Amino acid sequence: MRLKIDVTLDYNFPEPADVLLALDAAILPDQHLVSDLLTVSGAGPLRPIAGEEGIGRRTWLRAEGALHAVYTATVDVERKAPKLEGLTNAPVRDLPAEVIPYIWPSRYCESDKFEAFVQAEFGGLEGGAKIAAMADWIRGEMAYVSGSSDSQTTAADAFVQRQGVCRDYAHLLATFARAAGVPARLVSAYAWRLDPPDFHAVVEVWLDGAWRLVDATGMAPVEGIVRICVGRDATDIAFMTIFGAAEMVAQTVTVTRLDG
Amino acid sequence: MRLKIDVTLDYNFPEPADVLLALDAAILPDQHLVSDLLTVSGAGPLRPIAGEEGIGRRTWLRAEGALHAVYTATVDVERKAPKLEGLTNAPVRDLPAEVIPYIWPSRYCESDKFEAFVQAEFGGLEGGAKIAAMADWIRGEMAYVSGSSDSQTTAADAFVQRQGVCRDYAHLLATFARAAGVPARLVSAYAWRLDPPDFHAVVEVWLDGAWRLVDATGMAPVEGIVRICVGRDATDIAFMTIFGAAEMVAQTVTVTRLDG
Amino acid sequence: MRLKIDVTLDYNFPEPADVLLALDAAILPDQHLVSDLLTVSGAGPLRPIAGEEGIGRRTWLRAEGALHAVYTATVDVERKAPKLEGLTNAPVRDLPAEVIPYIWPSRYCESDKFEAFVQAEFGGLEGGAKIAAMADWIRGEMAYVSGSSDSQTTAADAFVQRQGVCRDYAHLLATFARAAGVPARLVSAYAWRLDPPDFHAVVEVWLDGAWRLVDATGMAPVEGIVRICVGRDATDIAFMTIFGAAEMVAQTVTVTRLDG
Amino acid sequence: MRLKIDVTLDYNFPEPADVLLALDAAILPDQHLVSDLLTVSGAGPLRPIAGEEGIGRRTWLRAEGALHAVYTATVDVERKAPKLEGLTNAPVRDLPAEVIPYIWPSRYCESDKFEAFVQAEFGGLEGGAKIAAMADWIRGEMAYVSGSSDSQTTAADAFVQRQGVCRDYAHLLATFARAAGVPARLVSAYAWRLDPPDFHAVVEVWLDGAWRLVDATGMAPVEGIVRICVGRDATDIAFMTIFGAAEMVAQTVTVTRLDG
Repeated sequence: MRLKIDVTLDYNFPEPADVLLALDAAILPDQHLVSDLLTVSGAGPLRPIAGEEGIGRRTWLRAEGALHAVYTATVDVERKAPKLEGLTNAPVRDLPAEVIPYIWPSRYCESDKFEAFVQAEFGGLEGGAKIAAMADWIRGEMAYVSGSSDSQTTAADAFVQRQGVCRDYAHLLATFARAAGVPARLVSAYAWRLDPPDFHAVVEVWLDGAWRLVDATGMAPVEGIVRICVGRDATDIAFMTIFGAAEMVAQTVTVTRLDG
Repeated sequence: MRLKIDVTLDYNFPEPADVLLALDAAILPDQHLVSDLLTVSGAGPLRPIAGEEGIGRRTWLRAEGALHAVYTATVDVERKAPKLEGLTNAPVRDLPAEVIPYIWPSRYCESDKFEAFVQAEFGGLEGGAKIAAMADWIRGEMAYVSGSSDSQTTAADAFVQRQGVCRDYAHLLATFARAAGVPARLVSAYAWRLDPPDFHAVVEVWLDGAWRLVDATGMAPVEGIVRICVGRDATDIAFMTIFGAAEMVAQTVTVTRLDG
Repeated sequence: MRLKIDVTLDYNFPEPADVLLALDAAILPDQHLVSDLLTVSGAGPLRPIAGEEGIGRRTWLRAEGALHAVYTATVDVERKAPKLEGLTNAPVRDLPAEVIPYIWPSRYCESDKFEAFVQAEFGGLEGGAKIAAMADWIRGEMAYVSGSSDSQTTAADAFVQRQGVCRDYAHLLATFARAAGVPARLVSAYAWRLDPPDFHAVVEVWLDGAWRLVDATGMAPVEGIVRICVGRDATDIAFMTIFGAAEMVAQTVTVTRLDG
Repeated sequence: MRLKIDVTLDYNFPEPADVLLALDAAILPDQHLVSDLLTVSGAGPLRPIAGEEGIGRRTWLRAEGALHAVYTATVDVERKAPKLEGLTNAPVRDLPAEVIPYIWPSRYCESDKFEAFVQAEFGGLEGGAKIAAMADWIRGEMAYVSGSSDSQTTAADAFVQRQGVCRDYAHLLATFARAAGVPARLVSAYAWRLDPPDFHAVVEVWLDGAWRLVDATGMAPVEGIVRICVGRDATDIAFMTIFGAAEMVAQTVTVTRLDG
């Protein structure tokens, strides 16, 4: 599937501030970059650095006054929705070093507190079937309510309040997975057919020796997701981090299918 | 039912400290005090004051070194387990002033965060039937695990962790009730047949214009519960509050049936 | 000082909801009500009930669609700013039953966590001088930033973030006071010369056997404060509690001096 | 300085459980491993993996019943206490990708909440002088109290309570540093002259393009610290993580100087 991504960000910086953007579609085996371009006006020189785990690319810049950033990309996604059910998960003692950070609790994923719940609710299942049941539970029990959470909302908060947005759904799934000993990380993404269009947050779980993409919200087909960057939780995957103050003027994200 | 209550507290105070005891069986229409006696050695003069809402009695004292407190009481309890199912709850706008403190969220009962869950899980029920279903849910989903919670554990914590002790069960029931607009308060109590014997925490909910006693744990028959004092949550109902430091040496609570 | 109070509230209720208003100026020895009137359109019959501790008056009503509430009052305030410095505080073991709820930690006032800080910072002072030093510390270390806190912000949050609004200043002072064994409660109020005009939150501390009014923000003279109601923290003193959903359309609070 | 490290761990596992040990002295430019040996009885085969950031080594194993682990090492430490005062910190926009994880807030280091405090308290200083002032502040304002914190205690908790252990001191310093835009990470370590002997937690801050070791407690000379592993906060650097239940029987850590 060939997708066209268009992002515009308009922000106003009353004072000069350092900014870290994470907008670039990552180059990965199942998503090929045909072309992309990031242009920024109202900022000093752009300094690209690698994303977390070496996945994707982030850009440092210095902003002042009106910042206008445009990112466009054409990406070929060659991915089928993984059949989670057949996948197995190894005992934690067989996990490789590189996935260890993703079995720990993190700021927004307090997996250590969910062990009893996860055991009671999903203990009879294994591997991918367990992850699929977790995603089903989340879709069934949570209400997707725009504005119902904020930057401080954790998985435990969302679990109690039974509502959230994609970020909270992803946090919950990662939390449940880790509580069951399955490494899980957050992924920021562009998502075809996401309605309303916006940045999206999904999850990768480590099953059968590889990371498998899961959208806990079920709002966008996995075949049309373009990953930007990965991390332990929302802390690592913000599309823009401002070291200072700014106000949003306008922001748009569009994902269009070019083929088919 | 005639019950004999025996409490001994042995604590050591390395420095002088003020202490508030709440050990006395309250005098209430459904529990009649035949006799009781509080004796304390290792303390300055005892100063009794009323309990919260004028229910029960608390005692101020000054402790230093070895404190030895003994409380004994004989109480006639004339109470049947309330049939919750037939009781109705009024709209909040009809609630009297004296129960208003018990519809608010409190430190350990974050009822404002549970509204969606309570509506989804218990929304089809009303009045006492709803409260009974809440207590059933708690007994079914929570595991009673000694030592699994501490003085900082809130209802939301216990809900996430799916375990707790009587204090947490009571907090959860009060939280669910308040989230449904039913006033609910915590009650410290002596409980016949509680195993192992200890101070107990139960709940009163306001239904059909009166407070109704419910034991969220189901560990002790309501007919054998002797209330000590009431409050918004565990904050108000501690059997001993120490304004300073002390260590417990020994502590026993015994409840014996004298008749039948 | 004779003050005229004018409040208008315009809210929209998409669904019928119960509402508890707490707008009435309380009748107290140091504030005499000359006249007042609460009129509400867009609501069912008004049902007045007493405020917490029997102070002030609250009003239950049923709202649907456009709610328009107007409260006007003329109040004579006869109060001098208390000289805190000369006032003493009793040992907690001498406190009467009615002030006990105000020595406990509460949801927004986690005084149990501040004991070491309060001892280190204010331990050399006693009574009113200690409270005055606490208020000075708060005014010196905190920044008053509109919009910097929300309904979940506790005293500990504000202490860490070093910013807040009147509610947070009041929570901090009450927290510090309780951590030092001085009963303290929150008070909602109208305040002459408060800029910008709004509902205000101040504190009462129990010193020398009486409640003493303190404005932790120092933004309004204590002589021009008209108390509405009191409580353990912000939980108890909201001017409007909505049991359902509503949106604010407009809201004004005006306090005008009529004499002098 | 040549140091001998001896660790013994005796734990009892009522049920089989996976365990991750992080006991090995890391091989780093300023600490050379002369020899070391980890022996474990009561466990299945040991599976070594790299530590976080490739620093140090961790060991997976399967435990059941009595676990007895012994780690001994001889290490040459060639490190002077860094003169923090002369070191500069770059603007965040010049930071390399590999230190980015250490400018974010993390579970135990809520640096986003401390920006105002850090600016007010340390805003007049730069680079290493600022970090040194932070460490001084922590040593001056915090009380080291064994048992005063637990595995849930965050930097904000410790800041409010003004007490903690080495873990909390390290969290606070890392939090302050990140709030000032200086990358900071937690380091588990063996420490010569630490009294009482135990595992230690210290901090590395990124100044002048390198990680600089700081002991926020000041309890052990930096010249005698042997690093084990690093991470975002206590989450990553536990010396033993048990995926199940176990009880400690005995545990000793000894660090002896062999030369000098």
